Amino acid sequence: MAKIKVGILGATGMVGQRFVQLLENHPFFHLSDLIASRQSAGKTYAEACQWQLASPMPKNVKSKIVKRIESDFDCQLLFSALDSQIARNVEEKFARAGFIVVSNASAFRMAPDVPLIIPEVNADHLQLIEIQKKNHGLSSGFIVTNPNCSTVPLAMVLHPLHQQFGVAKTMVTTMQAISGAGYPGLPSLNILSNVIPFIQGEEAKIETETHKILGKMTTAGVEPARFAVSAQVNRVPVLDGHLLSVSVKLKKKATLDSIRPTLSEFRGVPQEFQLPTAPQIPIIVRDEKNRPQPRLDVDSGNGMSIVVGNIRPCSVLDFKMTILSHNTIRGAAGAAILNAELLVTQGYLNLAKKSKRTNL
Amino acid sequence: MAKIKVGILGATGMVGQRFVQLLENHPFFHLSDLIASRQSAGKTYAEACQWQLASPMPKNVKSKIVKRIESDFDCQLLFSALDSQIARNVEEKFARAGFIVVSNASAFRMAPDVPLIIPEVNADHLQLIEIQKKNHGLSSGFIVTNPNCSTVPLAMVLHPLHQQFGVAKTMVTTMQAISGAGYPGLPSLNILSNVIPFIQGEEAKIETETHKILGKMTTAGVEPARFAVSAQVNRVPVLDGHLLSVSVKLKKKATLDSIRPTLSEFRGVPQEFQLPTAPQIPIIVRDEKNRPQPRLDVDSGNGMSIVVGNIRPCSVLDFKMTILSHNTIRGAAGAAILNAELLVTQGYLNLAKKSKRTNL
Amino acid sequence: MAKIKVGILGATGMVGQRFVQLLENHPFFHLSDLIASRQSAGKTYAEACQWQLASPMPKNVKSKIVKRIESDFDCQLLFSALDSQIARNVEEKFARAGFIVVSNASAFRMAPDVPLIIPEVNADHLQLIEIQKKNHGLSSGFIVTNPNCSTVPLAMVLHPLHQQFGVAKTMVTTMQAISGAGYPGLPSLNILSNVIPFIQGEEAKIETETHKILGKMTTAGVEPARFAVSAQVNRVPVLDGHLLSVSVKLKKKATLDSIRPTLSEFRGVPQEFQLPTAPQIPIIVRDEKNRPQPRLDVDSGNGMSIVVGNIRPCSVLDFKMTILSHNTIRGAAGAAILNAELLVTQGYLNLAKKSKRTNL
Amino acid sequence: MAKIKVGILGATGMVGQRFVQLLENHPFFHLSDLIASRQSAGKTYAEACQWQLASPMPKNVKSKIVKRIESDFDCQLLFSALDSQIARNVEEKFARAGFIVVSNASAFRMAPDVPLIIPEVNADHLQLIEIQKKNHGLSSGFIVTNPNCSTVPLAMVLHPLHQQFGVAKTMVTTMQAISGAGYPGLPSLNILSNVIPFIQGEEAKIETETHKILGKMTTAGVEPARFAVSAQVNRVPVLDGHLLSVSVKLKKKATLDSIRPTLSEFRGVPQEFQLPTAPQIPIIVRDEKNRPQPRLDVDSGNGMSIVVGNIRPCSVLDFKMTILSHNTIRGAAGAAILNAELLVTQGYLNLAKKSKRTNL
Repeated sequence: MAKIKVGILGATGMVGQRFVQLLENHPFFHLSDLIASRQSAGKTYAEACQWQLASPMPKNVKSKIVKRIESDFDCQLLFSALDSQIARNVEEKFARAGFIVVSNASAFRMAPDVPLIIPEVNADHLQLIEIQKKNHGLSSGFIVTNPNCSTVPLAMVLHPLHQQFGVAKTMVTTMQAISGAGYPGLPSLNILSNVIPFIQGEEAKIETETHKILGKMTTAGVEPARFAVSAQVNRVPVLDGHLLSVSVKLKKKATLDSIRPTLSEFRGVPQEFQLPTAPQIPIIVRDEKNRPQPRLDVDSGNGMSIVVGNIRPCSVLDFKMTILSHNTIRGAAGAAILNAELLVTQGYLNLAKKSKRTNL
Repeated sequence: MAKIKVGILGATGMVGQRFVQLLENHPFFHLSDLIASRQSAGKTYAEACQWQLASPMPKNVKSKIVKRIESDFDCQLLFSALDSQIARNVEEKFARAGFIVVSNASAFRMAPDVPLIIPEVNADHLQLIEIQKKNHGLSSGFIVTNPNCSTVPLAMVLHPLHQQFGVAKTMVTTMQAISGAGYPGLPSLNILSNVIPFIQGEEAKIETETHKILGKMTTAGVEPARFAVSAQVNRVPVLDGHLLSVSVKLKKKATLDSIRPTLSEFRGVPQEFQLPTAPQIPIIVRDEKNRPQPRLDVDSGNGMSIVVGNIRPCSVLDFKMTILSHNTIRGAAGAAILNAELLVTQGYLNLAKKSKRTNL
Repeated sequence: MAKIKVGILGATGMVGQRFVQLLENHPFFHLSDLIASRQSAGKTYAEACQWQLASPMPKNVKSKIVKRIESDFDCQLLFSALDSQIARNVEEKFARAGFIVVSNASAFRMAPDVPLIIPEVNADHLQLIEIQKKNHGLSSGFIVTNPNCSTVPLAMVLHPLHQQFGVAKTMVTTMQAISGAGYPGLPSLNILSNVIPFIQGEEAKIETETHKILGKMTTAGVEPARFAVSAQVNRVPVLDGHLLSVSVKLKKKATLDSIRPTLSEFRGVPQEFQLPTAPQIPIIVRDEKNRPQPRLDVDSGNGMSIVVGNIRPCSVLDFKMTILSHNTIRGAAGAAILNAELLVTQGYLNLAKKSKRTNL
Repeated sequence: MAKIKVGILGATGMVGQRFVQLLENHPFFHLSDLIASRQSAGKTYAEACQWQLASPMPKNVKSKIVKRIESDFDCQLLFSALDSQIARNVEEKFARAGFIVVSNASAFRMAPDVPLIIPEVNADHLQLIEIQKKNHGLSSGFIVTNPNCSTVPLAMVLHPLHQQFGVAKTMVTTMQAISGAGYPGLPSLNILSNVIPFIQGEEAKIETETHKILGKMTTAGVEPARFAVSAQVNRVPVLDGHLLSVSVKLKKKATLDSIRPTLSEFRGVPQEFQLPTAPQIPIIVRDEKNRPQPRLDVDSGNGMSIVVGNIRPCSVLDFKMTILSHNTIRGAAGAAILNAELLVTQGYLNLAKKSKRTNL
């Protein structure tokens, strides 16, 4: 089977680097285009990119020339690791030009006709693609997005609880890794031996995105879930892995004994179809009270499993627990790649014809 | 005026060191006895102690000989920085022997006849001393305690809100500094680039101590507050300063405009009596969304002010905010010293006669 | 006595902030002008500056309006915390305009007629001022510089050894704090749980500046010292304090017993004249093998003392030792202020008439 | 081919855990015995061990029962990750009892008849085994050791330079990771935002071990190399990877152009025999001035390659460079396993008969 050619928009940043790493030897996708800003364009990827990952840069991309966003691309699908403001300007144009845009950017996540997908949770929301195409007169291109890095673990854990018991309310306090702020991102003086209790726009994203993801697909669009979500976000001196202290109130009576298997035995579409990037166990429940921990557990399921621990009663809501997710894999590049794999499995990728763009 | 002679139980540990630092040149107290374990006894303090503070060890204690707990002490008041289990064995004996024990240990905090005091909040709970003396047939000695390092900032902030609006429920997620775990305390491998979402017994302490502190003094004892408190605790790679993400539901209608002055204008007994260790402003409210931060704000009010920031509406409870407190000053040694200053001001220290102990 | 009015060039950066902090309540100087880039100019200092120090911003500067470099200044002396490239463009112009420029920038440190001063070491090099004035036809203004933050501790320690025994060779490996890279400076992703073994231009600065500082003042200028200096520099995840592993070969026979008092009993001009910023003991020698350490010792002598420890024989050169210095105090702002105090004491500041600049 | 049964002495510590990790699916060795202290013995490995590695504990060891040191073992070879003092007491007894002891402990490294081996450097020193056996009347057992974690990278890099040019002198300053101090090891309060410029005994180990390793095998034993080695050691807040700033003086004239290929093209016995744990390239030379860095390069060659960068002239000796090595892989467990693989290849392992020990 011939692989599908893909490109990466914003290929030199932190999330772009994760895309490059995760697409090495991917069974579905062949990385043909590395796209970045003017300063990087024309250089080799090795020259243009300050590689920040502990595993070495894949050999086959080192000498690839980075392209400008205005270039012609030899691919059918574009992964977007763009900053949100730039994404807002170009992703729609790429969709119009016939590209399938699988975006990690926040620009269009909350657009009513753009799917905001966690494949284990709301694969059915891909039906928005047809609405999107109709609304915007798109032929073969369209946009699909994945959630914010802190929304992913929350929504993943809430989903089986919501199905089983109904979620009434939830509170979450995040402790987020510095890699989530990109590169150069957070100055070291700000975070060494410190916590920063603020990330611009993050709390609103967690609250609104969770509602959309756990919403119900109708012919008119997604009807968002309505339970209260309240988030408090913090940045901590951790390299990778967002840790969440979560409390949840359920509509139906639940017990610790019923919650644990509800989470640990949960499986979704990616597990059913054995998608290449899908973890075997989407939600790993640990018994130890002092787990999960970012340093020890962040790579669980190759960074695609959510890890939950210390589930216990809460005297204000019903249950509290600790949740961990790899912020640049399950929370960004891995999330988008899993979305693209889902598109392949669901037949959406054949709709798109290979196209050469001319002048964005 | 002659100063009151005081000793420190557990003088070589992290909290013991803070006592030594804060008692240097204290206007009320003269540090006469440094008391520690058998391994330390007989050595000079400089030899016995692995000093961990950035300011140098006070000169006058360097050559002082550390005493065993079984020695005779030349003091009237003992500050206790003992581990809880040791405290349980010896603090009561010291009280029986006529010493006033002002303890940071958790051993007797929840005993019904032992005051658990934050001077700004519940100075009236000192009335428990009479009950304690009667219950245990104590002549001049007694025990007074201060709360856990994470309870202090929560109870301090809840108190004026509770007075003004009534607290209905509160949730708190802590991000606690490593100095709170003592020395040697937390292994570096556990915490470098990591978060540990568990501290043994800490969540229960926060919940029960808050109820007692905000409880009502009656002739029969303290009637604890009854609102729900739910805590989730985490250890983060920060040297000093516990940061709390707090959400609170109030009984009466409140607004952001009414909450801010309720906190920032709050003053208590220590401010009224201008106690030496009392901060001018017990609760500092900051305007910036990204404050307080441990590294920048932990020394506010010489480590005795609580700093609150980013007060905003909460969609699950009513309001959320970030709270910071210096864990070994306001949360431990400074708390105990302020308690001792309160005892002086309230005339409790004259009740105690100077005594020589013989054989614990 | 009326205070001398001073300004700070680059007042909002890391070193600029230290200037502001150290000039609060200075007995000689009154801070009249805060000068920074176009983005900052016109704002209050509180708005323009992301204050990074643990002690709060001095109240009297909060509402001061930051000026552009092209403004008129109401001061006689300008402390420069500018980046080297900007310094190269403007410092000379300010000197021409009649200002005494006391600079921490590297731009003119190695200019043959610009004094590169550590007051304890080479106060006599101030004689270069006359040569500088003649060379450039300056009336009242001139430039005086202090060394790189890593040169200071090395040159301070080598100086008394050089006087007493003659230095033949020295090797130094630095472990430098992140505050030395300014703000935003080093991205956190680069340094958390990491060491970066490179700082652009730093090794050459250490080698050439040491030669100039320890050089001999002659009528023709400074004749640099000639012993070999070899530096290897590293950045480590430490907030403040550059630590150096140093080895030195001496010309005359020395012993551990003769080296220790040579360092610990050394005093210089600042101690003789009791300059306000001078530490009582310029070089503190510690007995413990595991000291100095940045976290525990960086504030020794209010950040102006150099701390030396673990002096021991070296099998390649003669002696090795560990040296610590506060990089933004003794290595930057404090160094410049001590230079300015020296200028006052030595009568250089009266030579300069107060001047209003017009159009840089 | 049947695998050789091996055990691990000190299986629950930091180095013991690396042994467990690296022996999973090893082509030569089958891990049959996990041996630890009394507190651990009788428990499953999962219960006894506080696993500190980011990759999960291998499944097949989780339920293995940890044995006491006095038990009977079903293996031919014992890897020792014991503390040096315990090693001194028991390793010789195990050798007498017929076990091949491949030790990472320092106890017998400098014993004249015990091989101290880096397989790439001095595989011929295995000839000491015969001397050892004769000296101590050993039948089948014997002891082989690997060097200290900081000696390994220094000796590896010096070896090809010594062969080619002759080493005259070398100076090294280390910046060592916290995992090198074991678990619990270094208290977090000592190292967060700090450097500790002292590790007990480490400097002497680096100096004496380097001499032995680069010494010449003669019929009478190893004649140590005689060039001067001077080490200064520091502990830095890094999880894994010892970084060294090294300077070296050579006997013959060398140039940067000749040194680089001398290092990068160096191959040893493990590469020749393609030992399972051997890296393809033992010494990787990087072009970037700011490399190697622990976080980015520590896993080079699966943690078995030494990485060298920024080779440049030194004005005191001849050349200076930065060197990195994974301290618990190439510097400990990986080193010992490579030694054991060498023993297999060189036929030493057949000499040992499988034996049951009785009463140590």
